[in-house]
Formats: sequence, C-alpha cells, structure tokens
Amino acid sequence: MNQLLMQTLRGEPTERRPLWIMRQAGRYLPEYRSLRRQLSFVELCSRPAEAAEVTMMPLRRFPLDAAIVFADIMSPVAALGIDVDFAPGPVIESPLRSANDIHDLPDPPSEEIAPEVIETLGRVKAELDENVALLGFSAGPWTLAAYLVEGQGKRGFPTLRSMAFGAPELLDDLMGRLVRLCAKYLVAQARAGADAVQVFETWSGLLSQGDWSRIVKPHLRTLLEAVAEAGVPRILFLQEAPHLVDQTLDLPVDGFSVDWRVDLASVMERIPETTAIQGNLDPATLLAGPQVTAAAAEDLLRHVPARGHIVNLGHGIMPQTPIESVEALVEVVHRAGDGY
Amino acid sequence: MNQLLMQTLRGEPTERRPLWIMRQAGRYLPEYRSLRRQLSFVELCSRPAEAAEVTMMPLRRFPLDAAIVFADIMSPVAALGIDVDFAPGPVIESPLRSANDIHDLPDPPSEEIAPEVIETLGRVKAELDENVALLGFSAGPWTLAAYLVEGQGKRGFPTLRSMAFGAPELLDDLMGRLVRLCAKYLVAQARAGADAVQVFETWSGLLSQGDWSRIVKPHLRTLLEAVAEAGVPRILFLQEAPHLVDQTLDLPVDGFSVDWRVDLASVMERIPETTAIQGNLDPATLLAGPQVTAAAAEDLLRHVPARGHIVNLGHGIMPQTPIESVEALVEVVHRAGDGY
Repeated sequence: MNQLLMQTLRGEPTERRPLWIMRQAGRYLPEYRSLRRQLSFVELCSRPAEAAEVTMMPLRRFPLDAAIVFADIMSPVAALGIDVDFAPGPVIESPLRSANDIHDLPDPPSEEIAPEVIETLGRVKAELDENVALLGFSAGPWTLAAYLVEGQGKRGFPTLRSMAFGAPELLDDLMGRLVRLCAKYLVAQARAGADAVQVFETWSGLLSQGDWSRIVKPHLRTLLEAVAEAGVPRILFLQEAPHLVDQTLDLPVDGFSVDWRVDLASVMERIPETTAIQGNLDPATLLAGPQVTAAAAEDLLRHVPARGHIVNLGHGIMPQTPIESVEALVEVVHRAGDGY
Repeated sequence: MNQLLMQTLRGEPTERRPLWIMRQAGRYLPEYRSLRRQLSFVELCSRPAEAAEVTMMPLRRFPLDAAIVFADIMSPVAALGIDVDFAPGPVIESPLRSANDIHDLPDPPSEEIAPEVIETLGRVKAELDENVALLGFSAGPWTLAAYLVEGQGKRGFPTLRSMAFGAPELLDDLMGRLVRLCAKYLVAQARAGADAVQVFETWSGLLSQGDWSRIVKPHLRTLLEAVAEAGVPRILFLQEAPHLVDQTLDLPVDGFSVDWRVDLASVMERIPETTAIQGNLDPATLLAGPQVTAAAAEDLLRHVPARGHIVNLGHGIMPQTPIESVEALVEVVHRAGDGY
C-alpha cells in the first residue's frame, strides 16, 4: 500500500505530490450530469449504491490520489430531527432561533447519524484501489450552525451573526451540541473506511480574527481533539478566510487546506515540517482551459516545496470546467515527480 | 469650517474622531423605506431632488461627519451606452464578452457621465452644514468590469474570472477604458461639491495576491493618480480582502477603508502617520442592539489610536439595524473626544 496522501499527512516524503480536487465528483463530469437527470441531489445522497458510484466517477477518469465520499454537508443533521430541503442550497424549514429550539435537540447515538453515508463509505472502500486514500468529511460546528440558524445560505448570514453578538450563549450551546454530533459522525466515517477526514469550516471568514477565536475556535478545537483521540487523521479547510490562517495554526490537525488568497509557501514556513498544506489553485484558472491550467499548476509547484504539499484547488471545481483542464493538472503533477 | 473628516484625511489632529456610516442613507431608516414605497431605487437615483433628500436623511437624525451622495455604483456606465436594470442588484442585459463589445465602447466627455449624480451633489452641497464633509464615490475598474462582464452579481463571478485568466488582454482593455470613465466621473463629483471621494474596489477579494497585483492594481493606481492630480482627496475601500491590505499600502490615497477582517491598529503601524484609516465595526454588532454596539465601539476606540482614525463600519449598515444602535455608536464616538 502506497497512499501518497496519507504519507504526506504523516509528514513522510513521497515520490510525488498527492493530488485530489474538491468537488471532484460533481457537475463538470458529463457522467455525473447524466445521472443527475434521473436523480435529484437529495436522492443521490440518500442511496449508497449511487452515491458510491458518484464517488468513484472521477477516479475512473483521472489517476487521483484520494476519493472523497459523495454526501451533503447537512447529512448529519437529520439525526437531530431537522428536515433539510435543497433549492438548490440547503433550506431548513424551521430554523433554530430560540433557547427551546436548541434545548430540545436530541443527542443521537452514532449509528443514527447519516447511516447512508456510512454505508456509502463501506461500498467505496471495497472497490477503491488500495493506493488511493478515502476521505470522509463534515462541516464544522460554525458552518452547520450557519445553515441551522439562518435557515439557508444567505450572503453575510445576518441572523447567525446577530445571534453571535446578541445571544452568544445560545449559539455556544448549539455549537457544543454540533461538536458532539460531528465528532461521532467523523469517527464513524473512519470506522467505515475513511483513511482521513476533512472538516469544512466554510463560513469562518464571516468573522473577525478576535470574534472567530472567541466564538468558533474553542468548539473547533474540541471537535478536532475528539477525532484525534480516536486516531483519525484530520485536514481543516476554511474558505475565504486568509485573515484566520494564523489563528488556526495551533489546532490539532495533520493538514491545512487553504484557498488561493493564502500564500502556501509562507504558511509552510510557519507550521511544523510534519504538517501538510493543501491547495490552492484558483478554480477559475481551470475555466480558462488546459494551457492556462498547466501554467498555473507549474507556477504553484515551483513556488511551493514538494514535501508536505497536497495539490488541490482552493475551492470546489466549477461546473463549467473543461475535462481537459483536469487532465492538464494531473499531467503537470505527475510529470513533476518530487521535483520543481 | 471645521470638517473633522477632511482634517483626518490631511493627517491633522482633531478634537474627536470623525464618524460616518457606509450605506447611512439606506433601508434601516424608516423615512427611506417610506420614500421607497413610492419610488423605485432606479427612480430615486435618477431624480436629483429626491436623491439629495435621501443623502440628507441620516444627517437630519444623527450628527455624522460626512454625507455620501446617494447614487448607484453603476451610474457612470450609462454614458457608455450600457443599460442597467436592478433585480435588485445590477443586471446588464448585454454583458461585455467579446473584443467587439469592448472596442465599440465610447469615451464619453465628462458632462455626459451621470449628470444626475453631479446635480445631486450640487443640491446637497447647498444645504449641507459646512462642518460636514460631502463624499462622492465610484466603483473601481475591476468592480465595474465584474458586473459588465458577468452581467450581474453572481457568487464567485466565474465569467469575469475566466476572462481574467483566459483573455487577459480583453479585460485589460476594458479596465483601461473604465479607469478613464471613473477618473472623469470622480473629478466631476469634486467640482460639483464633493470634498473627497471613496473608490469602492468591492470585488477585489476574488483574486489572489499575485493576480490582484498584476491584473487590478496597475489600473487602480492610474485611476487614483489621475484623481490625485486633480487635487481630490481619496479613500480606497476593498471588501472581504484582508489578504490584499499590504498590496494596497503604496497606492496614492489619503485614507484606507477596511472591513472587520483586518486589524486596524496593525495597519496603522504600517502606513505614514498622515494617512487615515477608516472602519471597521462588524455591521452585525449593530443588529444586536445598542448595548452590544456601544461595547463593540468602545473596544474599537480603545484598540485604535484616535489620530488618523475615521470611525465607520466595515461594510454597509444592514437593513434590519435598529436606529438605537446607530445612536449608541454616535454617543460613544462623541463621548470619547480625542481620547481612549
């Protein structure tokens, strides 16, 4: 077994940089779009056979170094008795706004949390090349709370931020409960076959450095520590939050995933040699075709030392991306070996 | 005449910090909402008498230190022969995508550029207390290009970013033309009574440090230099772009306006004593009511030295904001004098 991604997360040198792509099982793939003409996103996520097939789709096309389970970030909240629709982002029919809404939430046992995702992981694991790492994932407590409080993705999340400042003890209570949910969920994913997990604390960038460190960071630390205690390797991703990088660097993770707003090489200088850094091509470069993609990928590889670098985009790959751009990215990474 | 805002932009000490609020003439004011029940946003912007009245609304309620002309950021593009609808954000019926679309744009004389805004400024100037500074504004070339190329505000602006990487010479041509338009527009606003202007390069944060410095910064510099040559004081605002602060610090401006993602005091240490810094309360703190607002404002004033600080929010005030929160902010700033 020779999983480049896991070697890099353990701080070991590799024959070349591992590569995977956020949202690699998504709408830029014609075979995914074709399946989506028959099944809605919700239906796909709820059917382990189909979700496993979607998880495998990018691996059948490209020699990527990780598969990431196809699931929605809201999957675990069904176990809290919360209904989520998609239109197309998550919509919560009854957002959590009051103390009662939050106090009444159950503390479900592990086996009740997104069992369909756990089954999907088992199916993928059985099929996946042993050299390809399998990733589980969860949103972080702040990002889950964002949707549960706001009721939907909304620019600036005003209701969430109003609660953060006006009723901080309420939000704190909610996030504590979500940490317990996410910890069980992530550990269950590892037991079902995930080699590592990525925590998407996507909406972190809404907050200032001080507010994030006070409101979000303690909960994120509790979550990451619980997952670490279970022996599960962890990657942390914050979106559009270049101001929070230094705030995250003392959290217990094996890798930091950052977007193109952050200079990877300079972060690498500030973390231990055994911690990996993941990213961070601007997905828009792939829109511009294989030549632009190859040039941007070469720039990235030249700029960032190979050791400890997991090549990825800075956000999810965009639906309009040509397949040829992904091929060009793969080619540059494979050709580079451990060099540049 | 004792304009605290202009004194601060000139680097002079003041008896207390100046205060104004981005979007201070907006939907959180009941009198504005009442007027909007009779007139659409487009109608309001197109009628100088009404736009002047809206500009004055917040000044009739609060002892603010600046008025900012009520206009839309797309106002100057009508002079390019481009129609803009609002639904509710700007929508361009025929987005600019090809070389022909861009080559065919006219280079209008100053007097054809948003004459309704120029007339509004004259009306406000005639009525405004001489101790209150009058601000004009424009979007920057990247932000105007964002709407003109994308066709509307769209998360991530994929078409714009695709052009930035795939057809950079096209975007460069467009931005050069927009710089000429904005420079004439801003100078005309000053001649009509604006004491200073603010350039909103709102969508800067979409780009990495390297790409922003290569694609946007040269055009922004040309614009700011042209306005500086005409003797017009300049404030530069970038939204959600904490990673670009250091890239902007050598641009020719009198003040930098930043959001709450940026630590004001640390920026102040990196700029000349004569350059002002503006911001940066999180508007969400005002949603949480006057007590939370007062506490957040006191924290800000304690943290940031008074000299060179223009108090403001980090983004526009939110529609749901209680009037009492604005009163609390005014009270804290006035009570502090030149202290804290």
